[in-house]
Order: sequence, then structure tokens, then C-alpha cells
Amino acid sequence: MSDWFDAHHPRLSAAIEATLSRSYHSPFQESPSRKHHPPGAPAAGKEAFEAQLGRSFELELPGEVARTGHEVSPYTREPLGIDYPQVRLDALLNAMHQAWPAWRDTSPRSRVGVCLEILDRLARQTFENAHATMHTAGQGFLMAFAGSGANSLDRGLEALAYAHRAMSDVPLRTVFSRRFGPGEPVVLHKRYRLVARGIACVVTCGSYPAWNAYPALFANLATGNPVVVKPHPGAILPMALAVRTARSVLAESGFDPNLVTLLVDTARAPVAEQLLLHPRVAIVDFTGSQRFGRWIEKHCRQALVFTETAGCNAVVLESTHDLHATARAIAHSVCIFSSQMCTAAQNVWVPASGVRVGSEIASPEAVAEALVAATDALVADPAQAAGLCGALFSDRTLQDIVALQSSGAPVLRPSTPYAHPDHAAARTATPLWLQPEVAAGLHEREHFGPMAFVLQAVDRDEALMRAASDAQQHGAIASYAYTTDETYADQVEDAFAAAGASVGLNLHRQLPINYAAAFSDFHVTGLNPAGTACLTDLAFVTQRFGVVQSKREQPPTEPR
Amino acid sequence: MSDWFDAHHPRLSAAIEATLSRSYHSPFQESPSRKHHPPGAPAAGKEAFEAQLGRSFELELPGEVARTGHEVSPYTREPLGIDYPQVRLDALLNAMHQAWPAWRDTSPRSRVGVCLEILDRLARQTFENAHATMHTAGQGFLMAFAGSGANSLDRGLEALAYAHRAMSDVPLRTVFSRRFGPGEPVVLHKRYRLVARGIACVVTCGSYPAWNAYPALFANLATGNPVVVKPHPGAILPMALAVRTARSVLAESGFDPNLVTLLVDTARAPVAEQLLLHPRVAIVDFTGSQRFGRWIEKHCRQALVFTETAGCNAVVLESTHDLHATARAIAHSVCIFSSQMCTAAQNVWVPASGVRVGSEIASPEAVAEALVAATDALVADPAQAAGLCGALFSDRTLQDIVALQSSGAPVLRPSTPYAHPDHAAARTATPLWLQPEVAAGLHEREHFGPMAFVLQAVDRDEALMRAASDAQQHGAIASYAYTTDETYADQVEDAFAAAGASVGLNLHRQLPINYAAAFSDFHVTGLNPAGTACLTDLAFVTQRFGVVQSKREQPPTEPR
Repeated sequence: MSDWFDAHHPRLSAAIEATLSRSYHSPFQESPSRKHHPPGAPAAGKEAFEAQLGRSFELELPGEVARTGHEVSPYTREPLGIDYPQVRLDALLNAMHQAWPAWRDTSPRSRVGVCLEILDRLARQTFENAHATMHTAGQGFLMAFAGSGANSLDRGLEALAYAHRAMSDVPLRTVFSRRFGPGEPVVLHKRYRLVARGIACVVTCGSYPAWNAYPALFANLATGNPVVVKPHPGAILPMALAVRTARSVLAESGFDPNLVTLLVDTARAPVAEQLLLHPRVAIVDFTGSQRFGRWIEKHCRQALVFTETAGCNAVVLESTHDLHATARAIAHSVCIFSSQMCTAAQNVWVPASGVRVGSEIASPEAVAEALVAATDALVADPAQAAGLCGALFSDRTLQDIVALQSSGAPVLRPSTPYAHPDHAAARTATPLWLQPEVAAGLHEREHFGPMAFVLQAVDRDEALMRAASDAQQHGAIASYAYTTDETYADQVEDAFAAAGASVGLNLHRQLPINYAAAFSDFHVTGLNPAGTACLTDLAFVTQRFGVVQSKREQPPTEPR
Repeated sequence: MSDWFDAHHPRLSAAIEATLSRSYHSPFQESPSRKHHPPGAPAAGKEAFEAQLGRSFELELPGEVARTGHEVSPYTREPLGIDYPQVRLDALLNAMHQAWPAWRDTSPRSRVGVCLEILDRLARQTFENAHATMHTAGQGFLMAFAGSGANSLDRGLEALAYAHRAMSDVPLRTVFSRRFGPGEPVVLHKRYRLVARGIACVVTCGSYPAWNAYPALFANLATGNPVVVKPHPGAILPMALAVRTARSVLAESGFDPNLVTLLVDTARAPVAEQLLLHPRVAIVDFTGSQRFGRWIEKHCRQALVFTETAGCNAVVLESTHDLHATARAIAHSVCIFSSQMCTAAQNVWVPASGVRVGSEIASPEAVAEALVAATDALVADPAQAAGLCGALFSDRTLQDIVALQSSGAPVLRPSTPYAHPDHAAARTATPLWLQPEVAAGLHEREHFGPMAFVLQAVDRDEALMRAASDAQQHGAIASYAYTTDETYADQVEDAFAAAGASVGLNLHRQLPINYAAAFSDFHVTGLNPAGTACLTDLAFVTQRFGVVQSKREQPPTEPR
């Protein structure tokens, strides 16, 4: 085994620097442009993906009892035809438990080196993974390349850097010397070992699997915990690829590949609850619905639990210099990947007296019109819509849109499919804009998918109060505000901070407003109901291991 | 308000250094010797304590409805006659909630400065607190001075240093700049705020209240969380003194004193459960029984929970160069404060084939005799016994000793009272040594108080296996081993590490074997059932606050 820690040390050092400055850092390549990649890489990735279709996924796992897998492409609506090992849970966990001691007891340096190499290998399979993500999650290809590639790899490296720092905080040994009464000082030789908690379970979501999976995978693995990945049954392939790669690096480095495994289930016969309640499972990282996240937080008492779920993300629209630019920025966040990202805006709060635009006032109606017009413009061209909106991960979302559209709440803009230029069968939907009564409370939960609300508040103070209070009570992963009034901007910051929610102000430029940057944006505060896992702070890593110490007095060489 | 952060900065800096080296560091004065203290301090402390007896404790708290307090000195067996405010829980928590924002929103530097000043004031009242601890917890005066003084202050400062480091890890602001497509880079001005979780509840134990209370108090307070201290109804005074001092420093510095409060209850009408389940309580630090600790871990779902409870601490006695020295070291740990410390040894495992002593073998019987003889020698002189054993905190312990002594398990040494030279009525008991059958399982839980077992294992491997397995299954806060065989010593370290338990090897010298040093010994691993709170690692502090961010794009100065 080559010394991967040394080989990748510059990458780790730069990452550590970035965790301290929290400024821009992105060591992995976000663009699929050919000029950034080895010749043939794009084609090879596509071919590898296509060669997998209709075949068994090669992965040997302990306790295999059958094959399973029912993924369907949101673009072709055809089954991928890939089957994965279905395993007996106990056999899988037993094998992981057996694999554990060698990994737990090796040095943090050795584990971090292996993790760095896994990251590097994952980066090299980004093209294949992008196709896999596109045809399971439903992301457009460009987003899938960035999202399952650099954006997730960056977050994985960020978590790894924090894990490395947290482990390095404890010295390996120390000499303790103090006088205790008369005579020679007492000298104790102390050794501190970092001991992992045990098997970690990473439950990934369907629409954006790698982004939360990689940080959890690397935080757990680096600190010595074996990881079983439990993917959403609709988006197995991106995770199966990552698991296979991790296993192959582990095996190359002389460790048991069962330190990273995959547990595949089906929507009809889910195993998540059984897995998460298993006494061998010591850590849970969950990404998914707030309902299931709360169930886990309540019931998985044997495990350390990290969740990222969902909230009702708000936009407080108070004033702007350019209503069209603002409307476009908001509409873009509702369109991008059909609002299936946890940072998508949903509730746009507008004062009843209107929004100040330079020296003018735009009425709430004018604001709603601007949002609808901006949305229309973004999805008018099917090719542009395809790149921006991608496809819906699930039929359920389509049903939810239909139900909401006919719920009686005034419709500002109906959702319609757009015609995908490459995939006629694609499951598509442009955003639905509604203007419900605030009192109806429709906005007080996440509506997963391209559904957004224009909500009228009495005035700007109520708009802010409502948005912040919703974040505190119902959760928020990202909140937004637009104002040209510095005093109000400060109030916005304070109100969201008191509610335990992060906020972006006046975001307009080329950057999608709901873009969260690894190494810079702290994602999920842990202070409101949208989850407990922050990507990435020290708290995300410090509890994944404990410190066990031994101390020795040098035994007297002869009887005293 | 003077700048307490600057004033105490050298103390903080040295503490931070110590958290990194984990070698010996103890900035507070452990000895009550007159030469280390201002003239008159010992007498003033004693007078202050005596003046308090039979009087109302001066402390104004919100929601007072009555006065309560039924402390009884374990030495005089007389009521202390001190009454404390009894308050309405909701009124107390509401007042704390109102006090919170100003504390939460001030700078970490300002909070840490206030905490450093509180520590300094607490240090200055150590004489008074030592008498208070003696006559509530039952500790001897010397132990009470060190235990409620330097040892606890050191641990409080240690937790404060970790909190300061964890908070300093997040920059206040950063500038994020990246190109996103053609044109100018997007520049975002990001601000990161550390936001506290909310009201923290510190539940302290009767026998050693300050040692866990101070770390929890300062970790919570420094990170912005108000603290309500809920003392054991039998040991209120040491905590009431600390709370009053903290409140006075807070008031001097312009903050609301209700950031630190006291909730007193009685054994007949306990309020702990109601408090711990209250939706306003966001953090719980608990020290006490394993039973109640588990109840909290299971039921307090709304709060972040840290526990230090108890385990069945083992000694693996394999070989030694000096059986009498080893027996004395073990017996000392059973005698000191009548084994009412969480690090006291309880289960002494001896191979059936005996213990190697130099080139001889001591039979299990000879080992048991040596332990009994060493115990006898330590408690033979009442004055020495008084200093070493102190008194029993509770009648319950006396009943437990009687019950165990007549349980049918073979008695090696019966427990008897010793005659305290100064307090004829003192509740005293010398150690009970039993030699129960292993199969009876008597040793598989903590017996709080001076009760210890000699247990026979088939051989040294079984002795180690049993001790480590008990630690893993039933918990251990401290474990011990004696061996002159380096190979076996390594096996001991590995076995306890795998069990998630710390171990001390061949501890003999002047240092009591169960002494745990702040800044050096990691106390409680969090990896076995004896608790989840490690004093002190980063995990003890990092979850007590979250990071909330705001980011702003500079608004365009004119419409685009």
C-alpha cells in the first residue's frame, strides 16, 4: 500500500486551511467541460453507465439471499434493469463488526489516508456517477455532474478535514508529573486512544444522494466507524458506485472491504426501521423527510443521530433596486432541479403595502406578476427548462402538485409539464405558484417539488416575524431576504439568528441563490426543526469517537 | 465593568496550552495551608459558614412561593437549618428566557471574561465552600477543600478553555469570492454567529457536587446558554454559594443575574423530572445514578443530554513486585471518602492460581488477607480514618452496607463505624469486603459506598475478560490493573480500550489511585453505560451552540 496520507497531504492541508477561513475553496472539478478532464473520460463514463443498464451490479456482500432493485429513470420512465445484492441484515452487520477492530485500532493517519484516496477515486468516476444520478435522482446532466461530483466531494473532504482536526486535537501520549506530598514527583505515562463508536448507518435521499452521504461517510470512516449505506430505493446506483469504490480502496490497503457496505431495500419491503433500531447501529446519519427524521430522533435511542430533513424556506421581499432581477433570482431557485433541493425557496412574503423598488412601490399583485413572468421566461425554452429543471424524482411529487393546484388556493401560475428535448417520456413539471391565505397555513411545511407561495403580510415587520417564526417552529434550511434598507437588513439578520436559521440577503448575481458552498456555507444550523447535522462544523465530527486513556506508573524495579 | 477577559487572559492561555498537552496543570490552590492564602481567609470562611447555619440563605429568585431546605450534616446529624427560595418552575424559566438574548448576543469574548471572573470569585470562597461541602456531602475537610476547590475549579476552567477554543474555531466573518460563469466574480460577505441552544439544566449529585457542576456550568454559560442548577436536596449549600457568586458577577457586568439560577426541591417533592422534560430546557447535564441517567437519556428528547453516572469499577490483580503496596493502594481507593467517588475501585479480580509477587505466588486467600490488612491499617486510627473516609452522605448507604453484609456472601471484612474524633454523631463506616461467587452477579452494578469484592477468575485471561466485559455491559468510570508483565499490560490496555473504558496500571505512589486530574485525565469515555459526558474533550462543548450564518451580496447601487 502506498502512503496515501502523504500522497494527498497537500489536498488535506489546503482543506484544513479552508475550514479555518471559510472562504471559497473547491479543489474538485465542477465542470464537465472536456478541457478539464483526461481524453476520453466523458465517453468512458457514459459507456460505463450504459453498460450497467439491464445487468447485475457487481458487488459481493456478506449474507446475500437474493437480488433486488427497481430503479426507474425519471427521464425515460423505463426501469434501469439493475439488480443489487439483497442481504440478511444480521449477516451484514456481523461481517462489519468483524471487520471493525483492525480499522478502529489503526492510526487516524492511516484511516484519513485511505479516505483521501477514496475521494480521489470517486472524483475520477464523476462522469459515470453523473449519468447514474441523472437517471435515478432526475437531475439534469450538468447539475448531476457538479452535484454528485465536485459539490459533494468538496463536502466530503470538508468533513474529513474536520474529522482530522478533531482527532489531532488529542495527543497520542503525555507525561504527567506532579509532586504529591514529599519525595519524588509521581510520574504517569498516559496514552490516549480515539475509539470509534461502532457501525454507522448513512441513509441517503433520492433526489440529491451524494451531498449528505459523502460528509457522513468520511466523517464516520475517518474516525474509525464502519459504514453501511442505505440508499433510497429509487436512487441506489450513485451510492452503489461509491460503495464499490470505497470497498476496492479498502481492500487494496489491506483492510476488510466490509467496512463499507450497501443495504438495498424496496419501497414495498423497507428495512430502514429495522436497521436503524438495531443494537449494533451506533451512529445514524439521515437525509430525508422531516417526518421520518423526527421518528429517528425519537426512537433510535441506542445511536448518535444526525439528521438533515426539510423546512419551509422563506423569502422576505421588502425592497429592491430591480424587481425583475430579484424576481428572476427567486424564480430561478424555484425552477432549479424542480425545487427538489433542500435550499429551494418556497414562501415569498410580501408586505400588503407593496415592495419598494427604487423610488416606486410595486403592489403585491405586481410582485406576483413579476415572479410568474420570471418563471415563465426561465422555462419557456424546453432545452433551457431541461437543463434548469431536470425531472421529478417521483410520481408522488406530480400527484402533490396536482392536489395542491386543485386545493382551492388561488393559482398565480399553474404547473405544466415541459417537453424535454431528449426524453419525450420525462417526468417534468414547471413551477406552480399559489397565493394562499396566510391563515390557511399551507405554507407551514415543505412542499417537496416545484411549488411556491406568494404570501401577504400586513407590513414588513410582520413579513419578517412570520418568516422567522416559521423557521423556528417548522424548520428552515435556507432563508432569503431582499432589501435595500440597511436597518431592515440588520433586523433580518437578527431575527433569523434568534430563530436559529441562516439567511442570504440580496442574492442576485450569476450564483444560484440556493447554492451552498462547501468549506464556506454552514448548512443546517441544528437550531430549528430542519435537522441536527451541520455541514460542517466541529460538532459534526467530535461525537463520532471517544477518548479512552490508559496511564501507567513505571512499576518499581524492586520491592519497596 | 472591567475587562475581565484581558485581566484573566494569562490564566486562559495557560489553560488552553494544557488542553493541548494534557500534561499536569492546576492553576488553583489545592492546599488549605495558611501560607497559600491571605491572612484570615481560613477563619473568615469558617465564620461565614457558621453564620449561615440556622438562617435563610440570601438569594432573590423569580417566582418565589415559599422557603425550603432540609439539609442535615453527616457529621453532626443535625439539620443545617438553612432555607432557600422555592420557586414556581415556569416563573423561573420565563425569567431565564427573558434574560437570555443579551447574553446570547454578546460576544464570546465577553462571556468568557465573565466566566473567568466567576471562577476567580469561586476560588476566593473555597474555605466557606469546603465547610459547606463537608457538612452536606460528608467529605473530610481536606478533601472538601481540594474537591470543591481547586479540583473542581480546574475542571471548570478546562471546560471553559475548550468552549473558548470551539467558539474561536468559527471565524466571525469571511469574504467569499468566486467566478460563476463570465463576468465579475460573485462576492458574498458572510457573517457567522454562534447561537446558544437555550436554557441548560445542571443536575448535581450529593456526594461530590462541584466537580461535574463547574464544567457544565462554564461550558454552558460560555457558549451562551442560561443555567439552572438543580442540586441534590441533601447538598444544596455548596451549589447555592456558587450560584449566588455567579449571579453577583453577572449583575456587576451588566447582565441579568437570572442567567444563573437555583432550583431547590426536597426528597419528598422532587421537581427534577418536571424540569428535565420542560420544553424550555434545551440542555441537560446530569450527575447521579445510572438508573436516573438512563431515564434522562431515554425521555428528555427535547434536550441535548450529557450524563455522568456510575459503573462497576474493576481492579485486575495479576502480579506485583510488592503485594502490600498494591493492597494498600487498592484499599486506599475503597477507603477514601468511604468509596463515594465515581472512580472508587469495587471489583478486585484475582486469578484462582494466585497472584505472582516477584518470584513467589500469593494465593487468592493471601491476596484477600492483604487487602483486609491494608484496610484495617488505614482505618485503625480514628483521626486518620476521619481524614481519609469522611462520613457517609446518606442513611441509605448505611442500610445498603448492612443489607449486603447480611446477604449471605462470604464476608472478608465486616464494615464497622469508626469513632470520629470531632463529631461523635458522625455517620461513619469502614469498608466492607466480600468474596461473593462470580455467578451471583453481585458485582455487576455499582454499590455506592464502602463496599468492595474480591472475585476469583479461572485465570488471568478470564480476570481481564470479565473486568473488561463488565465495563462494556454495565459501565465503568475508572478501571485498574496491576501487573509486572509488559505483555499482559498491553493486553489490559487493548481489552479496556475495546470495551470503551479507561484504565490505570500499576498505580502505587503517593497519588491516590482514583485521583483524576483536570486537563490531563479524560474522565468518562462516553463509550460505555457509565455516562456520555467526557471531562473534557471537544465533544463536551461543540454541541452546546450552533452556527447561524448570514450572507450578503452588496446590493447594486443602481438598477441594472
